Amino acid sequence: MPETTTERVKQILSWYASDNPGTLANLHRMLMTGRLAGTGKMVILPVDQGFEHGPARSFAKNPDGYDPEYHVQLAIDAGCNAYAAPLGFIEAVAHKYAGQIPFILKLNNSDSLSKLGGAPISAVTGSVKEAVRLGCGAIGYTIYPASDARNEQLENLRALTEEAKAHGLVVVVWSYPRGSGVSKEGETAVDISAYAAQIAAQMGAHIIKVKPPKALVEHPEAKKVYEEQKIPIATLPERVRHVVQSAFNGKRIVIFSGGEAKGTDAVLEEIRGLKEGGAFGSIMGRNAFQRPKAEALKLLAEVMKIYTT
Amino acid sequence: MPETTTERVKQILSWYASDNPGTLANLHRMLMTGRLAGTGKMVILPVDQGFEHGPARSFAKNPDGYDPEYHVQLAIDAGCNAYAAPLGFIEAVAHKYAGQIPFILKLNNSDSLSKLGGAPISAVTGSVKEAVRLGCGAIGYTIYPASDARNEQLENLRALTEEAKAHGLVVVVWSYPRGSGVSKEGETAVDISAYAAQIAAQMGAHIIKVKPPKALVEHPEAKKVYEEQKIPIATLPERVRHVVQSAFNGKRIVIFSGGEAKGTDAVLEEIRGLKEGGAFGSIMGRNAFQRPKAEALKLLAEVMKIYTT
Amino acid sequence: MPETTTERVKQILSWYASDNPGTLANLHRMLMTGRLAGTGKMVILPVDQGFEHGPARSFAKNPDGYDPEYHVQLAIDAGCNAYAAPLGFIEAVAHKYAGQIPFILKLNNSDSLSKLGGAPISAVTGSVKEAVRLGCGAIGYTIYPASDARNEQLENLRALTEEAKAHGLVVVVWSYPRGSGVSKEGETAVDISAYAAQIAAQMGAHIIKVKPPKALVEHPEAKKVYEEQKIPIATLPERVRHVVQSAFNGKRIVIFSGGEAKGTDAVLEEIRGLKEGGAFGSIMGRNAFQRPKAEALKLLAEVMKIYTT
Amino acid sequence: MPETTTERVKQILSWYASDNPGTLANLHRMLMTGRLAGTGKMVILPVDQGFEHGPARSFAKNPDGYDPEYHVQLAIDAGCNAYAAPLGFIEAVAHKYAGQIPFILKLNNSDSLSKLGGAPISAVTGSVKEAVRLGCGAIGYTIYPASDARNEQLENLRALTEEAKAHGLVVVVWSYPRGSGVSKEGETAVDISAYAAQIAAQMGAHIIKVKPPKALVEHPEAKKVYEEQKIPIATLPERVRHVVQSAFNGKRIVIFSGGEAKGTDAVLEEIRGLKEGGAFGSIMGRNAFQRPKAEALKLLAEVMKIYTT
Amino acid sequence: MPETTTERVKQILSWYASDNPGTLANLHRMLMTGRLAGTGKMVILPVDQGFEHGPARSFAKNPDGYDPEYHVQLAIDAGCNAYAAPLGFIEAVAHKYAGQIPFILKLNNSDSLSKLGGAPISAVTGSVKEAVRLGCGAIGYTIYPASDARNEQLENLRALTEEAKAHGLVVVVWSYPRGSGVSKEGETAVDISAYAAQIAAQMGAHIIKVKPPKALVEHPEAKKVYEEQKIPIATLPERVRHVVQSAFNGKRIVIFSGGEAKGTDAVLEEIRGLKEGGAFGSIMGRNAFQRPKAEALKLLAEVMKIYTT
Repeated sequence: MPETTTERVKQILSWYASDNPGTLANLHRMLMTGRLAGTGKMVILPVDQGFEHGPARSFAKNPDGYDPEYHVQLAIDAGCNAYAAPLGFIEAVAHKYAGQIPFILKLNNSDSLSKLGGAPISAVTGSVKEAVRLGCGAIGYTIYPASDARNEQLENLRALTEEAKAHGLVVVVWSYPRGSGVSKEGETAVDISAYAAQIAAQMGAHIIKVKPPKALVEHPEAKKVYEEQKIPIATLPERVRHVVQSAFNGKRIVIFSGGEAKGTDAVLEEIRGLKEGGAFGSIMGRNAFQRPKAEALKLLAEVMKIYTT
Repeated sequence: MPETTTERVKQILSWYASDNPGTLANLHRMLMTGRLAGTGKMVILPVDQGFEHGPARSFAKNPDGYDPEYHVQLAIDAGCNAYAAPLGFIEAVAHKYAGQIPFILKLNNSDSLSKLGGAPISAVTGSVKEAVRLGCGAIGYTIYPASDARNEQLENLRALTEEAKAHGLVVVVWSYPRGSGVSKEGETAVDISAYAAQIAAQMGAHIIKVKPPKALVEHPEAKKVYEEQKIPIATLPERVRHVVQSAFNGKRIVIFSGGEAKGTDAVLEEIRGLKEGGAFGSIMGRNAFQRPKAEALKLLAEVMKIYTT
Repeated sequence: MPETTTERVKQILSWYASDNPGTLANLHRMLMTGRLAGTGKMVILPVDQGFEHGPARSFAKNPDGYDPEYHVQLAIDAGCNAYAAPLGFIEAVAHKYAGQIPFILKLNNSDSLSKLGGAPISAVTGSVKEAVRLGCGAIGYTIYPASDARNEQLENLRALTEEAKAHGLVVVVWSYPRGSGVSKEGETAVDISAYAAQIAAQMGAHIIKVKPPKALVEHPEAKKVYEEQKIPIATLPERVRHVVQSAFNGKRIVIFSGGEAKGTDAVLEEIRGLKEGGAFGSIMGRNAFQRPKAEALKLLAEVMKIYTT
Repeated sequence: MPETTTERVKQILSWYASDNPGTLANLHRMLMTGRLAGTGKMVILPVDQGFEHGPARSFAKNPDGYDPEYHVQLAIDAGCNAYAAPLGFIEAVAHKYAGQIPFILKLNNSDSLSKLGGAPISAVTGSVKEAVRLGCGAIGYTIYPASDARNEQLENLRALTEEAKAHGLVVVVWSYPRGSGVSKEGETAVDISAYAAQIAAQMGAHIIKVKPPKALVEHPEAKKVYEEQKIPIATLPERVRHVVQSAFNGKRIVIFSGGEAKGTDAVLEEIRGLKEGGAFGSIMGRNAFQRPKAEALKLLAEVMKIYTT
Repeated sequence: MPETTTERVKQILSWYASDNPGTLANLHRMLMTGRLAGTGKMVILPVDQGFEHGPARSFAKNPDGYDPEYHVQLAIDAGCNAYAAPLGFIEAVAHKYAGQIPFILKLNNSDSLSKLGGAPISAVTGSVKEAVRLGCGAIGYTIYPASDARNEQLENLRALTEEAKAHGLVVVVWSYPRGSGVSKEGETAVDISAYAAQIAAQMGAHIIKVKPPKALVEHPEAKKVYEEQKIPIATLPERVRHVVQSAFNGKRIVIFSGGEAKGTDAVLEEIRGLKEGGAFGSIMGRNAFQRPKAEALKLLAEVMKIYTT
């Protein structure tokens, strides 16, 4: 970790000048932690899959992962900028690892058991008050743009964001289009991804997490504009650039998830594309913790290396 | 900007005498800002299209618009009375542009992704507390009269209006009929527009924004009255006069939106009709920020000129 | 206005002895205001039709009525006991007319645009806090007995009533049966009107407004009782007597609305019936403000004369 | 009224030892009021039929009953333990009759007008705060076990019970099975009545009101148990004994309603059965106030006599 | 009860180090109470069946159970670690048995009367404030993972958990999969049970109660993983081990319910399997209180013996 704040970090912080010093300090801490400290890039380890997909599907492959301590230690050892998890996983380690790495408390979660009979919307499972009690530096919240439950999601997020900012926390928004307003394929269409990033930014997110966009334009009215304006979307870097631009012309931190576990080459290939397009970093869960620890550390080191070269 | 408050501004403020001095001061500020200061007329720049229609459809044509600073600077350079936007866009510039132009924080927003499966209603995306924190002089809220979600909308607006007034803020209501109670065509029928203005006024709005009304009467029971009383609605000025009269006999500020981007001549033609009918001004988004800046400044200058001649 | 409180007013106030002095003072003020001061009778001017039916249908016939000042001045000039209107109309005049006549702030309203897709229920558009801020002496609230939305309506009314009484305000309830529990015709059936008065009284209303009942019994189980007990309902005075009796044996103030605008003779004929049946007065909107002012003053004077002879 | 607390009343109060002294004092007052004071038995006069069935169906037979004073005076003259009514009826007499008899404020009510389109659930029409303001010693709340609206009902009751106990009030629960979970006939089946008493007891009620149970077992799974365990249910005393046992082995006060107005002999016959089965008393409305006062006093005297012999 | 805290209890408490001392003290108390004190094992007596299944089905077999005192005395005499029941049952004994055994206040309950027309979700019947008033050391809450009412359940639990922890209480979660997301058979499938334990742990539960899992994998995507990773699930100990591992690698207390009343041999056989698989204990209701007291004490003694050998 560099001893003094870099110019790049100062520049990033300048985009958030309306925030209070407490929030800026927490954002500063995330940008100045780990192997990427000072670069303005971020790699975050998120572990909410036990909740989202169930314990066996998440941890059986690398059973050390059943233990909440495994993940926070992995994040620290790999030099990640932050560690994100639901209440139970954070609470299980918060006392012992207090101060060692920024925690992001995931404030809502889904599971794979309930059908909900309709519009996708996660359950609120944590609170700003709990984030403060557990010494977290940020909250995380997932929205599903295109869900019929839009208003409830955005209104929850709005209230939590206001409360988090008043308490000096950073707000990280997972923006994953899903629901009756998009086709399954269109969930990662480039226009939809860019729109998802815009919505999160307009809601006041400090850090926005989207999925890598595909070379597909979902909405007919958007398609007309993409064609008229000749917006380049053929390559991943082009699409990433467009998504980052869609988040206040690059003045909001946009990071990308890796999605399902896959081979090392495929992961690194994608990271290179993200880097080239101007992504601020990655959030990498299953591709990290479902590998044996040594392999995970190696992979994360390579990912971080790409982001700094 | 004139050095002293004009008689016209004093007259307008007298209609709001039940409001507390804080609100009157903010309304005074909006009426005494920009090129139209002191005239009692207003031109406001609103930029919520990134949220409402998506970033590419809104900004690709003039890509400077991806950057939130572009718009607030445009509003200042053009001599607008105020700048209106959702939380993210305001927060991105509030610190740097504090005091330079009155901000209107849009407190609810829709997007083009969610279908909501029914009655149109925007999501609440901001709060009076945030408006105060960010130094805004006003809040904005959109209602869709004729929506089945009427009660939820009006009850939200009621609570926000009460809180805003208690905090010395001005309340701007976008009143756009939409939903099962009107036909698509009827959304801008003159009886519906007049009714939309009346509802906003009765809800306690200080400034009411409606769309330019068409020479069409939607409701059969209203039609009978329009015919019996021979209410003139053939020309745009006549219809505007009727809508303004419907907002407490002209004792509430009613401004008109420009709608979709269109050619300069068409825009100015419409503005002339609005002016002649007694409109208090215009709120002009896409027609301004989707043009290159020089063109936008020229157009806005011409619009303002019409309102003062 | 008599200089000292009459015996009749003291008697009426004695029925409300559980209320606190603030509420009694406001009720006293309403009973001691205007041409009927001290008689125990009341004529109230309500103007919520702009909200309920739209501006043109309400005001085009007598266009002075577009202006909120017209109505409060009419109420004062006619010697009414009180003036009732929604937030916007009250706020537009509260500062200038403070103290000149008791204001009743209508706390909920419907419009003719929304279909709501089901059970009739008005939107809450004002609050006790706003009533206090604007110097009102009473709140007004409309319930639709027989609506499927019964619980939401009554629970809103309950909370507002409690808050109003704690703030020394009077509670006026418009009790208009409507919804799936009655036929269209049955909305003013005598059993339904009497029941509507009873419900309002049990909810804690100080003043109850119902429509003049018709010689019709809607519910079969009620019909049996009306026949067995030979309750006289053939004439309007008989029916009014029954409705007033149904409001705690006449120990709650029950006033009657005039309904749609109609001819002067028909209005006065009906008032005579109401008077003879023991009505405490009338609430008269469209029949007053849709006439030219001179005619309206004349009509209201005649109505008041009937109530005092 | 005996001068000192009897052993039986002390024993009953001992079952409620977890309650605070304020609640115990109010329960003591109810047990030490009227002709049954000190016996541990109770007869309560409830008058909510004006709200539930309408004024004519309730009061036309004995028109003195239109007046709220009639009922509280009847309860006092008859030597009842308490008088129960909705807000309006209590408020109309609370000032004048303060301290003369314990009041039970009915906090929720139904009417016969609304269909509600589904699950039976009464509207909340009063509050603990109002009960305290009006000097009541207890609140009353009706639940409909077997209604699809179970959760809303129980959650309202839970909150009101907590608040009432914190304010030193007694909680009386009307537990009337109704809704999609029981047949019409089964509403008073003995297993259902016993279950209704158990639910009210588990919810924290001090006094439980159920209807006299019929010799019928509704639920097949319960039927098996009743037959295996040979639970005697052939006679009314047997069934009452079972219901009382089902309320914490008789350690909660269970009283029975009389239901529809009927002949004197039928009423007294039923009371004898209740008494023999160990009922703590009766709550008798229509059978009392729909008779001429002299007859009502005579009937109530006979009922009370049965409970003490 | 051992005089000093054992090493095992210290170890268990260390997993909850993020909790405040009040909660740790209550957890310590539960682990150091009764015959299993200090062993790190627990046997809890829960009696909510009167509410859930009705009084006769629950208590007729051993009628002493109608009396709330019977159960708390049974729990004490048997040397249980804690006694769990709904509000009514706890309140009936809290004053007399204060301090004699830790109470767990069940904060939500279902009954067998209401159909709810859809997604299973219990009614909230108690509160943290009441748990504190009644001297309880823990709250209990039931969730039905796989219910369409997931969000409401988890959000209630979240709020209650936060409040309970702030008040120094322990949180016990009954996690019983049920609803449209699982087949009837699959409710106790091993993958579903493990997932249910994970969800409760992630929600912040201190003690998790699940049903003994069956040798069945419900979800196809889970099945793939169970087969690939060769997770052993053939025997009850293997399945229990998997479920305990799924609750933070055994760092959360997981106890198992006994389900329906059955023969002594069957009960003890199952307990042996639970013990071998690493269960922290059992929660045993009907199998205890539906037997004559002497038999129940004998059975519970044998169960506790298995857990300590």
